[in-house]
Amino acid sequence: MTLFTKSPCQIIDQEINPYVDQWEAEGIFPAHKVFKILGNAGFLGVNKPVEYGGLGLDFSYSIAMSEELGNIRCGGIPMAIGVQTDMATPALARFGSAELKKEFLLPSIMGDKVACLGVSEVGAGSDVATIKTKAVRDGDEYVVNGGKMWTTNGTQADWMCLLANTSDGLSHKNKSLICLPMNSPGVRIARKIDKMGMRSSDTAEVFFDDVRVPCKNVIGREGMGFTYQMLQFQEERLWAVGNILTMMENVIRETIQYTRQRTIFKMPVLHHQSVYFRLAELETEVELLRSLLHRATALYIRGNDVTKLASMAKLKAGRLAREVGDSCLQYWGGMGYTNDVLVSRFYRDARLCSIGGGADEVMLSIISKYMDTVPKAPPK
Amino acid sequence: MTLFTKSPCQIIDQEINPYVDQWEAEGIFPAHKVFKILGNAGFLGVNKPVEYGGLGLDFSYSIAMSEELGNIRCGGIPMAIGVQTDMATPALARFGSAELKKEFLLPSIMGDKVACLGVSEVGAGSDVATIKTKAVRDGDEYVVNGGKMWTTNGTQADWMCLLANTSDGLSHKNKSLICLPMNSPGVRIARKIDKMGMRSSDTAEVFFDDVRVPCKNVIGREGMGFTYQMLQFQEERLWAVGNILTMMENVIRETIQYTRQRTIFKMPVLHHQSVYFRLAELETEVELLRSLLHRATALYIRGNDVTKLASMAKLKAGRLAREVGDSCLQYWGGMGYTNDVLVSRFYRDARLCSIGGGADEVMLSIISKYMDTVPKAPPK
Amino acid sequence: MTLFTKSPCQIIDQEINPYVDQWEAEGIFPAHKVFKILGNAGFLGVNKPVEYGGLGLDFSYSIAMSEELGNIRCGGIPMAIGVQTDMATPALARFGSAELKKEFLLPSIMGDKVACLGVSEVGAGSDVATIKTKAVRDGDEYVVNGGKMWTTNGTQADWMCLLANTSDGLSHKNKSLICLPMNSPGVRIARKIDKMGMRSSDTAEVFFDDVRVPCKNVIGREGMGFTYQMLQFQEERLWAVGNILTMMENVIRETIQYTRQRTIFKMPVLHHQSVYFRLAELETEVELLRSLLHRATALYIRGNDVTKLASMAKLKAGRLAREVGDSCLQYWGGMGYTNDVLVSRFYRDARLCSIGGGADEVMLSIISKYMDTVPKAPPK
Amino acid sequence: MTLFTKSPCQIIDQEINPYVDQWEAEGIFPAHKVFKILGNAGFLGVNKPVEYGGLGLDFSYSIAMSEELGNIRCGGIPMAIGVQTDMATPALARFGSAELKKEFLLPSIMGDKVACLGVSEVGAGSDVATIKTKAVRDGDEYVVNGGKMWTTNGTQADWMCLLANTSDGLSHKNKSLICLPMNSPGVRIARKIDKMGMRSSDTAEVFFDDVRVPCKNVIGREGMGFTYQMLQFQEERLWAVGNILTMMENVIRETIQYTRQRTIFKMPVLHHQSVYFRLAELETEVELLRSLLHRATALYIRGNDVTKLASMAKLKAGRLAREVGDSCLQYWGGMGYTNDVLVSRFYRDARLCSIGGGADEVMLSIISKYMDTVPKAPPK
Repeated sequence: MTLFTKSPCQIIDQEINPYVDQWEAEGIFPAHKVFKILGNAGFLGVNKPVEYGGLGLDFSYSIAMSEELGNIRCGGIPMAIGVQTDMATPALARFGSAELKKEFLLPSIMGDKVACLGVSEVGAGSDVATIKTKAVRDGDEYVVNGGKMWTTNGTQADWMCLLANTSDGLSHKNKSLICLPMNSPGVRIARKIDKMGMRSSDTAEVFFDDVRVPCKNVIGREGMGFTYQMLQFQEERLWAVGNILTMMENVIRETIQYTRQRTIFKMPVLHHQSVYFRLAELETEVELLRSLLHRATALYIRGNDVTKLASMAKLKAGRLAREVGDSCLQYWGGMGYTNDVLVSRFYRDARLCSIGGGADEVMLSIISKYMDTVPKAPPK
Repeated sequence: MTLFTKSPCQIIDQEINPYVDQWEAEGIFPAHKVFKILGNAGFLGVNKPVEYGGLGLDFSYSIAMSEELGNIRCGGIPMAIGVQTDMATPALARFGSAELKKEFLLPSIMGDKVACLGVSEVGAGSDVATIKTKAVRDGDEYVVNGGKMWTTNGTQADWMCLLANTSDGLSHKNKSLICLPMNSPGVRIARKIDKMGMRSSDTAEVFFDDVRVPCKNVIGREGMGFTYQMLQFQEERLWAVGNILTMMENVIRETIQYTRQRTIFKMPVLHHQSVYFRLAELETEVELLRSLLHRATALYIRGNDVTKLASMAKLKAGRLAREVGDSCLQYWGGMGYTNDVLVSRFYRDARLCSIGGGADEVMLSIISKYMDTVPKAPPK
Repeated sequence: MTLFTKSPCQIIDQEINPYVDQWEAEGIFPAHKVFKILGNAGFLGVNKPVEYGGLGLDFSYSIAMSEELGNIRCGGIPMAIGVQTDMATPALARFGSAELKKEFLLPSIMGDKVACLGVSEVGAGSDVATIKTKAVRDGDEYVVNGGKMWTTNGTQADWMCLLANTSDGLSHKNKSLICLPMNSPGVRIARKIDKMGMRSSDTAEVFFDDVRVPCKNVIGREGMGFTYQMLQFQEERLWAVGNILTMMENVIRETIQYTRQRTIFKMPVLHHQSVYFRLAELETEVELLRSLLHRATALYIRGNDVTKLASMAKLKAGRLAREVGDSCLQYWGGMGYTNDVLVSRFYRDARLCSIGGGADEVMLSIISKYMDTVPKAPPK
Repeated sequence: MTLFTKSPCQIIDQEINPYVDQWEAEGIFPAHKVFKILGNAGFLGVNKPVEYGGLGLDFSYSIAMSEELGNIRCGGIPMAIGVQTDMATPALARFGSAELKKEFLLPSIMGDKVACLGVSEVGAGSDVATIKTKAVRDGDEYVVNGGKMWTTNGTQADWMCLLANTSDGLSHKNKSLICLPMNSPGVRIARKIDKMGMRSSDTAEVFFDDVRVPCKNVIGREGMGFTYQMLQFQEERLWAVGNILTMMENVIRETIQYTRQRTIFKMPVLHHQSVYFRLAELETEVELLRSLLHRATALYIRGNDVTKLASMAKLKAGRLAREVGDSCLQYWGGMGYTNDVLVSRFYRDARLCSIGGGADEVMLSIISKYMDTVPKAPPK
């Protein structure tokens, strides 16, 4: 990519990777500082409109970027970036008013504002239709009450792309996406969640007590939030796949390097057939996943509904990452069990991929719906 | 494809599928009759040169054809066709002399001659370098001695694309591919092998006792046989993947249809979550494989070496086919265990995919070589 | 076992194994002849009462016998024997009247009568509660109408242990087990089913048209049939596990022998690490299963309900047998794909273990019930 | 067990579990304090001789204790206890001189001294034969040089059961086990290793610079160390299996409890068939493992060599624990990814089981040796 003055690789090597260990230890990274660097380089709006600071490229460039960001030596920071670029902002970019985009999208692309996505709730992680947070109209404002859980960037974010119930109708038609400034009175960061992995990424529980937001902050049309979010999920999921793909490659490559040096039973660990055969199996699965990702992306930028393929890619990514982490760690022996090596961090970080952004079981349900194999719910 | 007067689908439905059960029971199908029909329709030389009766299309059309042929309701007949079109003839088409192509390729494309491939031997199934069959020069003839095993079409073939040692040099440089007429004196069909599956396809053990073949029957350059065969294997492997892909789809689709009707514990079998989730997993893997196949094919027709990707696709195809067959059969209950349904035939037929055309372990070795993870053999 | 004049091993080697290939080809074995030999040797009533010709030993000897019978070189004949000894007769031996035992049990133990078990029906394979066959009282006779499916020994049997609905009550309390002579007017063998494996064992579809049976032929108490059959299933399942355990051992052992001789890439196939590691994994699982079988058997003979453990053992046996067959076959290369070797027969035969006698999914349901994790059915 | 004034359960609940979270956070637990409590209760010498403070019971009681200790809510503390009771002391108890037992075994059983085991080294984790640490005789002392890695209890231990080379002979005959006081001059604790899991258990790297130990500190006969350690490993491995078995049970049970309450798609998570079927599969595997453990233990206390079965049990335990942790964590959704629940701690802790005490690949090698399937090393 000669589009940029600095390549993603350079920025990662100079501005991010040297600090990863520290940020992992601290349980948070300085999002504003890092995002500003990325924003200056043009990396936060690759496929966003030029008039709001983006590069106006198609979504395949976003995927290319997600793959580049997989070179960051942890999962938390790329995830935080992905939230900013491909999880909290696609609906805004596509359906938001010019005013809203100027207020929230442009500074997010510039790296001046940190975004978070408010979908998951306690007791409604993967089951988006059952969220409870309400935004009740009061004049030209909404009054928001409820809470969000598992909010990436939540303790640092300037604004949230909030999914809330704006009416009492059917659960697929009563929701709206709303740009909510996080410094609004009544927003309370309840706690930073202590996670097994993705430790450099802060995850918050957020509560809303009579938070007032202007009605014009609704993205697109009121009541379309569920639909927009389902669309937005496609980009989120493909982005996540691209990101973890590179991480898996790196873990496999470093495992090859390490096991080439480490000797057991008078041979490099690598040269035991069970080891290099297993690595060949994993590499095979990685190439399968890459092929599906690029096929789905190509279809997507030509305007197709790729919900089924994106869900398949996300499902496979989550499961394969668990296999890659688990199998590779084994070949590092005791070293793999320390916190000093990438593979053990990946083992903890990557486990999230099967849970966040729609758990594996949700992906299976979506795929099954597209295969028309799911029992129809009885009429109520 | 509007290239053809009859679509592959029509020919399969009218000329092949009605007879499959009979041919499976008989342990052989009438290759000359079936190939003539296919040859007339133009299906036996999709990517072969126009001057020898082919359609002159690129290899992606060959893959498309292999996918179409997956609609035949057994594995044996497509395999026999694949041997004719994409396993025994690619080297001839690419490297053979005009005279040789006229004598062997043209009638094979027309459907007038049946071809077979003579690579595997007793004790050298997947390990091509160690074959023992010799072709010793005597004037302008070779005298061939030895034998071939697992020869598809072997009892009916008019000619064999034979791999034989034509000198005593290094095992990768002493082999040649030779067009050997099967009615030559000294060719003996030792037996038709009784296989677990692929029953409509005859498989022979063939012996050569002082069989004389003109030296001009060598394909391309003497001593290049191993190299040509490795090239030829790429097309064979991709073809096999395309073919089994469609079969897997059909097995999954028929399983969905059957389990939708069959009731257990007061629900359609299909509507048990463990069933439709498993089917969604299998469909996911099928789409992964399709993506890799099409990516490898696209790279191949642009002139790239796709040995690594083709080997990965072949490995995955063999393993996935075992999973699809085994998992789907389960949901048919007792019916799945009878010989009356496609799924049980697929269970037996598809098992060959991990063995023939280079076993899974050979694929893993090839992939490992490309990953540079294999111990170097000590110098001799 | 010095109880016998001839050991099971001797009889298997002399009277059974030499004929297995023939019987497999014929699709049936001479049950009366073989059972008489076994009956004379005392092998058909190991744990049956001495007064009816049995040896009066505990059930662990039955399991020992099932393990011995695993040395027969096919799955069909042991299964047929198991039906006679541990599937169709346990309820009769435990709950039947003296008169009934004299008429049906004693000659079955002697090897003079061949028994079959009539539980499965079309559309109610593993779901025993939903069978449709009715036995309606008419004076001191039942009039039986309906049909049975997947009946092992069905074309040769002298009597059937029939499960039929003898009233219209709740599905767990309206069934009875009845000894039904197969030469009764109105019994019709509809067809011998053409199976993928277990080919030496005949499997029938049987219809009943106004078949009259004396009411005294009911085993134990009327209405207790479902309960008795559930009990009977415990012995059936443990027996099946013991039987297939030996077969798996034999397949692994023969695979070791074969791969020790067969060379690939300049080494015995066996000495490739991926091969001997895989065989070690399989052997590990076999020993795990053996341990569970013996533990469950020991608990059973001390009077415990081992439904949960027996179901676990059956589940594992079915799944492990698929793995053993599939993995070992791979190492035989092309030979494994012929009908000439034990491993390919095992591959086809053993696939039944996950389907017959309660499919894997039924085992999982039973285990789940014992774990109290199943949703309670809503009251009707 | 009425042998004890307090049951293991009581002590765990009162003296250990309330502090686990704190000790996990601190990266160490107070071994002297905890061991004294356990020693007072009689739990540190269950199968050790009465004359040295033990209870004189057979090894099955040690396994029962390891199962009890699985109720501690982390893996680190039980492991530390296991090192004291069944990893560092079996050889001493069996082969040590009375004097040595009085000095090291008795206070270890009393809970007055903390033991560690010095086998693993950098570059020789699972490959015990290649350790480099030397103990060179100098008069009636050994002079020890070298270092040990992955030493559990290493920062707190009073003495180490050290494996060192005491001569230059064959690697299986040149080693000795030596009781080495950790306060000897020249013993240096290089660092406490920062591990992914087992965080309450300290793991040290230890160096020896001219450490002098009396020759009478050798356990049993000089040169027998490798043999003794292989014996000692049997108890270590069986102990580890018993311990993790209970943990797996607890994780499954808590997962059932949690998923019974947590609702998704209008049903308890538990009541989705894919969930309770998976839990039934895991429970099945747990019961298989328990059966093998108890069978191996029973054989062991009757004097048999159970190396093969113990290695199988260890292999299965390690792999199953990874499956149990990974599968159960999934059903906790986001909660499973926090550090607040047992399942995520188990996910991190249990991963060690496939690495420590002989990695899975070492177990496979041992099993393969007993199956006689390993290539013989060429003579040197």
